[in-house]
Amino acid sequence: MENHVFRKQSLYKKSVPLPHDVPTIRGYDFNQGVDHRALLQSYPSMGFQATNLGVAAQEINKMIEKRLEPVEAENGLPGCTIYLGYTSNLVSCGLRESIRYLAEHKMVDVIVTTAGGIEEDFMKCLAPTFLGDFALPGKELFGRGINRTGNLLVPNDTYTAFEKWLLPIMVRMLHQQKTEGTVWTPSKMIHLLGKEINDPESIYYWAYKNNIPVFSPALTDGAIGDIFYIFTADMPGLVLDILTGMIILGGGVPKHHIANSNAQRFGANYAVYVNTAQEFDGSDSGARPDEAVSWGKIKADARSVKVFADASIVFPLLVAETFAAHADRLIARHKMDPTGAV
Amino acid sequence: MENHVFRKQSLYKKSVPLPHDVPTIRGYDFNQGVDHRALLQSYPSMGFQATNLGVAAQEINKMIEKRLEPVEAENGLPGCTIYLGYTSNLVSCGLRESIRYLAEHKMVDVIVTTAGGIEEDFMKCLAPTFLGDFALPGKELFGRGINRTGNLLVPNDTYTAFEKWLLPIMVRMLHQQKTEGTVWTPSKMIHLLGKEINDPESIYYWAYKNNIPVFSPALTDGAIGDIFYIFTADMPGLVLDILTGMIILGGGVPKHHIANSNAQRFGANYAVYVNTAQEFDGSDSGARPDEAVSWGKIKADARSVKVFADASIVFPLLVAETFAAHADRLIARHKMDPTGAV
Amino acid sequence: MENHVFRKQSLYKKSVPLPHDVPTIRGYDFNQGVDHRALLQSYPSMGFQATNLGVAAQEINKMIEKRLEPVEAENGLPGCTIYLGYTSNLVSCGLRESIRYLAEHKMVDVIVTTAGGIEEDFMKCLAPTFLGDFALPGKELFGRGINRTGNLLVPNDTYTAFEKWLLPIMVRMLHQQKTEGTVWTPSKMIHLLGKEINDPESIYYWAYKNNIPVFSPALTDGAIGDIFYIFTADMPGLVLDILTGMIILGGGVPKHHIANSNAQRFGANYAVYVNTAQEFDGSDSGARPDEAVSWGKIKADARSVKVFADASIVFPLLVAETFAAHADRLIARHKMDPTGAV
Amino acid sequence: MENHVFRKQSLYKKSVPLPHDVPTIRGYDFNQGVDHRALLQSYPSMGFQATNLGVAAQEINKMIEKRLEPVEAENGLPGCTIYLGYTSNLVSCGLRESIRYLAEHKMVDVIVTTAGGIEEDFMKCLAPTFLGDFALPGKELFGRGINRTGNLLVPNDTYTAFEKWLLPIMVRMLHQQKTEGTVWTPSKMIHLLGKEINDPESIYYWAYKNNIPVFSPALTDGAIGDIFYIFTADMPGLVLDILTGMIILGGGVPKHHIANSNAQRFGANYAVYVNTAQEFDGSDSGARPDEAVSWGKIKADARSVKVFADASIVFPLLVAETFAAHADRLIARHKMDPTGAV
Repeated sequence: MENHVFRKQSLYKKSVPLPHDVPTIRGYDFNQGVDHRALLQSYPSMGFQATNLGVAAQEINKMIEKRLEPVEAENGLPGCTIYLGYTSNLVSCGLRESIRYLAEHKMVDVIVTTAGGIEEDFMKCLAPTFLGDFALPGKELFGRGINRTGNLLVPNDTYTAFEKWLLPIMVRMLHQQKTEGTVWTPSKMIHLLGKEINDPESIYYWAYKNNIPVFSPALTDGAIGDIFYIFTADMPGLVLDILTGMIILGGGVPKHHIANSNAQRFGANYAVYVNTAQEFDGSDSGARPDEAVSWGKIKADARSVKVFADASIVFPLLVAETFAAHADRLIARHKMDPTGAV
Repeated sequence: MENHVFRKQSLYKKSVPLPHDVPTIRGYDFNQGVDHRALLQSYPSMGFQATNLGVAAQEINKMIEKRLEPVEAENGLPGCTIYLGYTSNLVSCGLRESIRYLAEHKMVDVIVTTAGGIEEDFMKCLAPTFLGDFALPGKELFGRGINRTGNLLVPNDTYTAFEKWLLPIMVRMLHQQKTEGTVWTPSKMIHLLGKEINDPESIYYWAYKNNIPVFSPALTDGAIGDIFYIFTADMPGLVLDILTGMIILGGGVPKHHIANSNAQRFGANYAVYVNTAQEFDGSDSGARPDEAVSWGKIKADARSVKVFADASIVFPLLVAETFAAHADRLIARHKMDPTGAV
Repeated sequence: MENHVFRKQSLYKKSVPLPHDVPTIRGYDFNQGVDHRALLQSYPSMGFQATNLGVAAQEINKMIEKRLEPVEAENGLPGCTIYLGYTSNLVSCGLRESIRYLAEHKMVDVIVTTAGGIEEDFMKCLAPTFLGDFALPGKELFGRGINRTGNLLVPNDTYTAFEKWLLPIMVRMLHQQKTEGTVWTPSKMIHLLGKEINDPESIYYWAYKNNIPVFSPALTDGAIGDIFYIFTADMPGLVLDILTGMIILGGGVPKHHIANSNAQRFGANYAVYVNTAQEFDGSDSGARPDEAVSWGKIKADARSVKVFADASIVFPLLVAETFAAHADRLIARHKMDPTGAV
Repeated sequence: MENHVFRKQSLYKKSVPLPHDVPTIRGYDFNQGVDHRALLQSYPSMGFQATNLGVAAQEINKMIEKRLEPVEAENGLPGCTIYLGYTSNLVSCGLRESIRYLAEHKMVDVIVTTAGGIEEDFMKCLAPTFLGDFALPGKELFGRGINRTGNLLVPNDTYTAFEKWLLPIMVRMLHQQKTEGTVWTPSKMIHLLGKEINDPESIYYWAYKNNIPVFSPALTDGAIGDIFYIFTADMPGLVLDILTGMIILGGGVPKHHIANSNAQRFGANYAVYVNTAQEFDGSDSGARPDEAVSWGKIKADARSVKVFADASIVFPLLVAETFAAHADRLIARHKMDPTGAV
């Protein structure tokens, strides 16, 4: 029986060997116990999006290392400028605490978000957001004056409280505009609101304290804005030898604006995207980092990564492996300069 | 053999009969020949997204019927105000011609888009966009000065041409601001550009000619903007008994802004969304119309529909079944008023 | 004013010209009236998934042309074998009528589907499927004995009717197995059921009449099955000079099995996928055609296309542009051979 | 200035208060240091998919608690039967080690997978799988005899090795069938292969050792299979008072088959899905758990959850919070019975 002879040697043609340094796929062995750091550090060799999550942590850690390098005396800037972008839903959910932590310790340098990404933070200082369900019927919620964002619930009363808080500030802003000629850009207004809220739970309280610019752009988010640039300015203070890193959660305007800004700086050196949008409909939200390379928004030789996942799952894990893992050094560095320059 | 007796009558418990008016599922029978109108009209009973596409056409046709109803003398407005929103990629692709057709014959009343949704239209008047491939490598394209948007290609030279065209206009805008005190809002600037481009291929040429406001919003897109409203104005001219319909292609700022505007009008009467975003990450882009009902952005008793599909496939079919199918009546109505009010 | 001099010539570096034959992006102009054939034929130059839908129609038309080429006398086979695969939900919805049309006129040669893709067809001969809504609550439906498939509803009574119809046939199958030694493969059973249902509305009635093999595979769907091949057979009748085309709607087993079968034939010559699955999680369902090229399932020089869309929208449009558009020639050819060989 | 009076009190109508037990949204505070268990335990109140991931861990822990409850003497079965389903790509990637851990310590009771989910495990005993990239071109890989699965690479030589290993086993199987009349079901064959591979890295080696049935179904996956049930058996040994829990990674046949089997048991008591498929195209892969409730596959009062995410990211985190967190008790229980019954 064993000496049966098969007609053909094999169905498959021989393969050319892969280079010796190609990593093999291997997951975490739980027989060594539950060690979350070791588990997450095994992700690069896991395959699929686990690999991308693992690589995203590696890239953010590179940004942090560059950021901690000794700064040159003349400009006093950190060695890597980190942009953080996010959509409003990520402030509505519990990522707000992770983002606030990054602002509190000035672990990022520039923030870009939507209007909702601003106001949801202030509203949470006034009243909580609640956990609901994706399937709660809109008609019934509307009748009760409750608004749904995915599986979150925000009562109308929170908006009323926000309005009550905001209106007197706007009266004062108008007064100041008239009497002192203040030109209120969105960024200035966000810093003022951060100062006024005076609450250490707020992202923008810390952005104000730590002098982190916050952008929430519009018509100027594109070629028109780029051209405005030439038209209006000599671009003072552009320090082109500083590296830039982008961490972008979600799509829409924040993603486009950060990438576009980096095209002006000849491309970001590091780029980490986390979102669920797909490229097949040609949307900017869904575009892979390689599309941004064609536009010069990411440098051609940068290692960029997109994690295809809901940021609510992924971003806290990334913070744990990166900023929070280096918190000692980052916080020490930040304390060196009480003016908030770094 | 045939009189074998089975132990149990059935695996399945009896069902309660469905009401008699529940439609049964049935597709188009190609034995009756290829009749595209009949085919698309069979979609509501097809199931899945074909049903949603069929229902979307029905809803848009309701907007059109209301729009064609005799207007009251005192305000001269059509019986249904139709908002059209879209992201920039939909102008980059061949939907631009469908959108231009709607603007040319004033088939819609308000347009909301992103910065890219404006500039891509003007750029196409200056140089074509090309068909590429989703897989073209960014590094190589960058080296050749060619930018990729999904499977489309836009050479840098098109941006240069746009810049060359735009800069002298900006010089004149600044001059006019200084000498005449003109306050240039994004909407005013878009109308000026539409006039300057002077090309019947352009969406915004027709928006200018037909007096269709075009919004491209930012910080004011949210509660802050809503509250500004109270603060700044007595809201003159708000005619609340007019119905509103929303047609929103893609997500991001245009989707949010149109819906938010309609919350100020106590909810849209009709709503059609076409996009590929999903709700599971809590993004506004992916939210189903029912989430907007909870916010009062869509009326609780409105029949709203989202078609989960790339608008590049679906929107031309929708235009064919709706606006273009009623072109005679819509164009006749538009011609009645050469001022562009309707 | 007009002689203002700008400091820099342009923000953008010059681009290398694209070859002259690169198509430019252009949509359908509705000013020429609503002509659906012209509209759909404009899709290849529309961009995004509209391009892929347009190219899918072109590829299927190539399969059809090859199929209509004169066959060689010795084997009597058509010049291109067309495989059609689909998941069960596509029979539950109104695509069943499109698929039945293709089987009725033997426009395809091999069918691969799941168990549900078989039984849903027979059940629809016994009782209708109804249109419901994606949001109908499962608990309430369960209490009423009604099952939901997306926005479709199937009462338990339909399953009971199916059971009542199927059990006596199984009794006879067992009898025949015992008395005549019949080995019942899934394919044989499906043909028997098609004969028994004796209803021209059924896909498998026509598969039986026209001798179209129907596969619904399992453990043998993979390398184990491939190796069985060597083990069991001398592979008689493999006619390797015939081209193969694959049309695969949805993912899962039908997609994998058809592609795998074609690897045995040294790769399909044409491949059209329609589904909504994404590649980022490494699933076979979401894999792009290029992944199949690496496995030798699609020939390296074949032009393959995936349309990222719900087949319920897209497949009827594809049939209209392809099989139904060539119905005269295809039906004439089929009638030439009443044995169902072609 | 401060006594400016606003015309309207508020834009927003008052909201009805939410019940006191509705959780508020709150994320993890990294100022308390990086504590992964605390971080993951904060997920239920994070919102969006983080909530679903947190709830999934809670549900699996409930299954485990029931499983550890004292068993009744007469049947010797654990108090909750846990089904684990997964698609083949999840064995190709590094989830294989997590799944093997669950089989090794008999932490799950039944496994359902596809043909690829079987063979990828054995192949990894013969040669490694490599890490590649989603963008590697298929044509070039094909030329080198290397196959791509997402961002993984499998050389042809691995298939050749598998073939070489499998063929002699098949010869013996045939011999045994002829001489001993063995009927080789897929499950029996998988156990035999697990015994033959004799490698503690293999999932199916442990399935064999621990007597865990492994199913890889086909035509019988649906109503036809259900009806076969009545036809062929008196259903001996069905112990209906045992609870069932389902953990299903990915979609396709494993998801459908496990859910369908549970309909026969009057619905699963616990259900956790992890996949990226969407419901809008009506596919079973994308159906939410509530659709399964309508079919009686999940009990109407069960708390089920779907995590919309790539299992490669999520499943190791789930194992860490559930099975591995209770490893001591689970392993002790398993050791009590060396026959592998529990």
